[in-house]
Amino acid sequence: MASLEDIGVAAGINGLSALVFLLAYSILRLQPINDRVYFPKWYLKGIRASPVSSGSVTKIVNLDPRMYLRFWNWMPAALQMPEPELIDHAGLDSAVYIRIYLLGLKIFIPITALAFVVLVPVNWTNEYLAKLKDVTSSDIDKLSISNVPPGSSRFWAHIVMAYVFSFWTWYKLYMEYKIVTKMRLQFLASESRRPDQYTVLVKNVPADPDESVSEHVDHFFCVNHSDHYLTHQIVYNANRLATLVENKKSLHNWLTYYQNKYERNPSAKPTVKTGFWGLWGQRVDAIDYYATEIEKLTEEEEAERDKITRDPKAVIPSAFVSFKSRWGAAVCAQTQQSSNPTIWLTEWAPEPRDVYWRNLAIPYVELSLRRLLIAVALFFLVFFFMIPIAIVQSFANIEGIEKVLPFLKPVIEAKTIKSFIQGFLPGIALKIFLILLPTLLMIMSKIEGYTSLSALERKSASKYHKFILVNVFLGSIVTGTALQQLHDFLHQSPAQIPKTVGVSIPMKATFFISYVMVDGWSGIAAEILRLVPFVIFHLKNSFLVKTEKDREQAMDPGSLAFSITEPRLQLYFLLGLVYAPVSPILLPFIIVFFAFAYVVFRHQVINVYDQKYESGASFWPDVHRRILIGQVISQLLLLGLLSTKEAAQTTPFLIALPLLTIWFHLFCKGRFESAFLRLPLQNAVIKDTLERATEPELNLKVYLEDAYIHPIFKCGEYRRPIIDEESDPVIVATKRNSRKGSKTGSSESSLKLSSTR
Amino acid sequence: MASLEDIGVAAGINGLSALVFLLAYSILRLQPINDRVYFPKWYLKGIRASPVSSGSVTKIVNLDPRMYLRFWNWMPAALQMPEPELIDHAGLDSAVYIRIYLLGLKIFIPITALAFVVLVPVNWTNEYLAKLKDVTSSDIDKLSISNVPPGSSRFWAHIVMAYVFSFWTWYKLYMEYKIVTKMRLQFLASESRRPDQYTVLVKNVPADPDESVSEHVDHFFCVNHSDHYLTHQIVYNANRLATLVENKKSLHNWLTYYQNKYERNPSAKPTVKTGFWGLWGQRVDAIDYYATEIEKLTEEEEAERDKITRDPKAVIPSAFVSFKSRWGAAVCAQTQQSSNPTIWLTEWAPEPRDVYWRNLAIPYVELSLRRLLIAVALFFLVFFFMIPIAIVQSFANIEGIEKVLPFLKPVIEAKTIKSFIQGFLPGIALKIFLILLPTLLMIMSKIEGYTSLSALERKSASKYHKFILVNVFLGSIVTGTALQQLHDFLHQSPAQIPKTVGVSIPMKATFFISYVMVDGWSGIAAEILRLVPFVIFHLKNSFLVKTEKDREQAMDPGSLAFSITEPRLQLYFLLGLVYAPVSPILLPFIIVFFAFAYVVFRHQVINVYDQKYESGASFWPDVHRRILIGQVISQLLLLGLLSTKEAAQTTPFLIALPLLTIWFHLFCKGRFESAFLRLPLQNAVIKDTLERATEPELNLKVYLEDAYIHPIFKCGEYRRPIIDEESDPVIVATKRNSRKGSKTGSSESSLKLSSTR
Repeated sequence: MASLEDIGVAAGINGLSALVFLLAYSILRLQPINDRVYFPKWYLKGIRASPVSSGSVTKIVNLDPRMYLRFWNWMPAALQMPEPELIDHAGLDSAVYIRIYLLGLKIFIPITALAFVVLVPVNWTNEYLAKLKDVTSSDIDKLSISNVPPGSSRFWAHIVMAYVFSFWTWYKLYMEYKIVTKMRLQFLASESRRPDQYTVLVKNVPADPDESVSEHVDHFFCVNHSDHYLTHQIVYNANRLATLVENKKSLHNWLTYYQNKYERNPSAKPTVKTGFWGLWGQRVDAIDYYATEIEKLTEEEEAERDKITRDPKAVIPSAFVSFKSRWGAAVCAQTQQSSNPTIWLTEWAPEPRDVYWRNLAIPYVELSLRRLLIAVALFFLVFFFMIPIAIVQSFANIEGIEKVLPFLKPVIEAKTIKSFIQGFLPGIALKIFLILLPTLLMIMSKIEGYTSLSALERKSASKYHKFILVNVFLGSIVTGTALQQLHDFLHQSPAQIPKTVGVSIPMKATFFISYVMVDGWSGIAAEILRLVPFVIFHLKNSFLVKTEKDREQAMDPGSLAFSITEPRLQLYFLLGLVYAPVSPILLPFIIVFFAFAYVVFRHQVINVYDQKYESGASFWPDVHRRILIGQVISQLLLLGLLSTKEAAQTTPFLIALPLLTIWFHLFCKGRFESAFLRLPLQNAVIKDTLERATEPELNLKVYLEDAYIHPIFKCGEYRRPIIDEESDPVIVATKRNSRKGSKTGSSESSLKLSSTR
Repeated sequence: MASLEDIGVAAGINGLSALVFLLAYSILRLQPINDRVYFPKWYLKGIRASPVSSGSVTKIVNLDPRMYLRFWNWMPAALQMPEPELIDHAGLDSAVYIRIYLLGLKIFIPITALAFVVLVPVNWTNEYLAKLKDVTSSDIDKLSISNVPPGSSRFWAHIVMAYVFSFWTWYKLYMEYKIVTKMRLQFLASESRRPDQYTVLVKNVPADPDESVSEHVDHFFCVNHSDHYLTHQIVYNANRLATLVENKKSLHNWLTYYQNKYERNPSAKPTVKTGFWGLWGQRVDAIDYYATEIEKLTEEEEAERDKITRDPKAVIPSAFVSFKSRWGAAVCAQTQQSSNPTIWLTEWAPEPRDVYWRNLAIPYVELSLRRLLIAVALFFLVFFFMIPIAIVQSFANIEGIEKVLPFLKPVIEAKTIKSFIQGFLPGIALKIFLILLPTLLMIMSKIEGYTSLSALERKSASKYHKFILVNVFLGSIVTGTALQQLHDFLHQSPAQIPKTVGVSIPMKATFFISYVMVDGWSGIAAEILRLVPFVIFHLKNSFLVKTEKDREQAMDPGSLAFSITEPRLQLYFLLGLVYAPVSPILLPFIIVFFAFAYVVFRHQVINVYDQKYESGASFWPDVHRRILIGQVISQLLLLGLLSTKEAAQTTPFLIALPLLTIWFHLFCKGRFESAFLRLPLQNAVIKDTLERATEPELNLKVYLEDAYIHPIFKCGEYRRPIIDEESDPVIVATKRNSRKGSKTGSSESSLKLSSTR
């Protein structure tokens, strides 16, 4: 057990390392060459076109000493932008996301104050641990509930505080849910016209022997939403085409790379091997090789594009159906169309950027089976993930490598390499797994068949949260692997589990304090430094960039990776809630984390991240629910801990807490959640009326025409020219088609034909 | 342990007692005087007006010997009516309800055959029980899984059979769900016009300082459903008035009773005491007394009726909103109206007979609190119901009574009375509780705030099912009270519970066989005899009936008490599923129960019951779910049982079964359930179109005008005369009001004012 001084030293070291990161950031960000790494958002918004250069600021290095003196000024700058402006600048998702950190501060600052005023004196003034001879205890333990002797009536203080903390948390959560709901509704109300407001995604269109999908959709909605139906767009299965385009882009990059190389050094013509990964095969001229490859791929692409638009089988049984008013779309999205609830499924369309195109055509039975499989897989992943890693680790030792690759033996036996392999390889297997985990969870969510990126992120976050809960939180508290824990838990009484875990809680305080410092403090500082995008940008900048447009594309603003950051940050809520009544000493560290993360992420949201889509804070119900899950866990653990403390007359008073928490969850769910799932008709009517009054001449059909075309048909050269808004799009398309007769034109026009009724 | 012969004898006795009931019924039903007890449905339908009398059949006793010879013919008669006719005659609820028994037969007959062909030989040909010296075993046990020695590979037979049984059950459940869904949709499609098809129940209308509830509803729906809104009816808080009317009816009955008494014996004028229950107080002339009391009550009633229609506070913040088409109503019922999801709540209106008027005005927070309280109360009721009964029992002994009522001492001390009290009183407390339990559960459901009788019945059934599961099923298997069991279970490992229970399963086979015979066979036979309505009808017939109309009212056809019979019948599914792989000997008894109950209830549905409302089989998802709950329990118990049999290599194969069952449940829920919750727009459009084509002149507003008026305003003398359909109802009402000026007229017309926009 660490003493208070040890903790202080550790805090100093970690604070220092965070400081070094921040210092490095503060210097790097001032160099104009890094401007596109640290301020990409301004470039993407078109506000900034090139780094600020004035006086002694050159194009590459900043030599102005005055600017170095003010290197801290990004922090207040990050806090200055008012929230409405932030929403306007970065979107509601980002603005609400950083409110989670603020919520952490709102919840934990009063709790910490109260805990230090009430619980710390109650714990400290006992002599219980000092009397126990066989246990070495430190100051940290003296501050915790461990120092209160069993059966003491002082436990009343902890119970009363548990209630106070819970009520305070509920109050803050309720207020926050209310505010976020209001922000979302205001955001939706003030939004300018967007295609998804009028559009419904229809899945599982039943097959009809006499009609094409497009005709079938058209007839169905003409009949069943006769007064409101406007038009629809069918969806093509463009997955193969998307892969081709992706490949072509990569080849283009290589071509540019070799062209640049050749330009810089015209004496040596660059060559490349045609085999696997350029490792073997015939050596040919690189530029010629890639040029021909690209040409081949372009032809293939054209053929595929042609095939998609001609082949009726390339049309998948889903469609984006648009209505004359937001009211019509809201009604269609919220109602059931057919007596068979597995066909004609309607849901509010995600915004076009948010659509996950590959999942639009999964039939009901298959979807149901996929969910079952992923549920089982997730269970095994959470509880048994150590097994494959242990197997890999058992191979990844010296003997294993020597057996499989005997020719490496002399290299491996060298002393430094040997010690490196022995020391790092087993750990690396686990580390690689943990780095790949979010990607793996995202793939699992994709298999489950969600149709929007926002839903995929939410579902991945939910899976990651379960993993962290079991393997990081429980795994750190209870000794043994998750697998052993599962076995133990199955063979223990349910009433025993909170006891087993609860008893270990105070003992693990120092471990979690250092976890908060290493993962929280330094992790956040590393976030602002953006080391990986920094390296990649400079690599691309040196080898690929020729024009300003290339440089634009080399920027990687990244985004708030909700599916990764949110579950990790939930761990801090959980730790705070669990330790508040037990070892309040942990709380200041968590407050520092929330405050620091708030500033850093606010800065990143303003200057760096570029969100791929805007879901209108639709993740908030998940955040709310997970904080409450943490609260229930904390209450059960306190109950378990106290029941081992011979406080039999006091513990029954805690039983009501988890029940009240669950009720509070249901209450909030009923009170607020539907605002995140459905568009109320009243709001739809208000927007519709306003629009009719201000823009009576609006031709909605033209506006919606191209909104939901697969992005592959939209990119670059294939974008359709803007057509005359007055004329009928069908006729225009046919005319243009006959005039041009080009491949692109014909594929485009057939696309359009389908989008009109 | 009972031997096969013991079981045979018990079956004989119980079969005989059932036979006696049936015989009594067969004779009683032939007496014309009982015609209204055993065939009330035909009277209510207006098909029969008086008992068939011909030849030697007098008005009271049937003396025709030929009819006695054919006294069994009701059984084939009950089976003859084809299902479509049955739906037409008794409604879909009843027709689908008796399908549950048929489903029992469909599931269990093949399972029984298979179990007897495969499992009985597998069990019987072992010698395990014979070898065990210290256990006395019978033939029954030799037929069960107990006879298979631990570690035997014969358990594979049981596991394979468990899978076969499960798949068969799923197949049958799936087919049945499909059929019932189709029946429901056909029923809804073929239904004639009903007010609830156009109407939505709107709850939690927010208060508006400037407008009345009626105006507020009108404006809201005019704006938000402008093209579809037709009219609405506000709801009055008529709870007090309903009580007054109820009291008056009871006084009327007494008046009639005394008048009849006086007529038969004009010499003695009947008198009555005015005090509590007629036990003390002044003795007055009975006929005069009741006549004045009724007059007083009538005045009070008129005043209350007047107050309700004048006082704006008597209008509760709910309304029945009607639309121009079924499409409009379906849309409104399925969508969210306001951004605050706790106001303007819309749901598909129950049919007028199905509305539970008292619960229409509960605000959201209160509703949420009520649900919490009832959930906690139900938990205590299920697990701790023995405590108050034990307390009552401890008082209800001789010493307790002597202490409270010392003057009864000489009476009680008499030997026969003493032994009666000692023998029966404790049991009676429990019996009374069990008889009152369904009523208690219904009251709890009413407190929860459901707004339709069908929902109340479904929720009560769900509560009753939990009670039976814990207290009858588990309570019979595990020794000790439910309270002790709960304690044991909390202190056991979760993996231990199925073992503890599973091991006792084979030992309890004989107990459950006799339970099935006593509760199932004789209980069903008692159902057809209708002893309580029989006695009450004849009492009323002797003392109250003067006219044919009175006789009509004395009939009590009763109804399928879904909330009581369905949970009880679920116990038989559970027993069948649990014992199928363990002790197949139980299965024939269950098949007899299902077959017998099917015939009896089909007969009752045709001849007796008169359903209070028609919900269109909306209870089926509950039935389906509860059978699956039984299946999961049976699978877990088999798993527990086998894990104690040292069959370690075989049991893991069973783990998948409960998971598959849960998945099957989710699959069916997604596939079918919404047909029971929502009206698909496609079906609404079809009916609307048909109606527009066949009745283009229909004045829907007039049709819907009075549909959702509290029944208290509709009954008897207060029914409005049919008005001219062409003219505007508002004007008519005002005219009539000014013409008539009577109290009734004015209250009626103000009601109508509110129902028009």
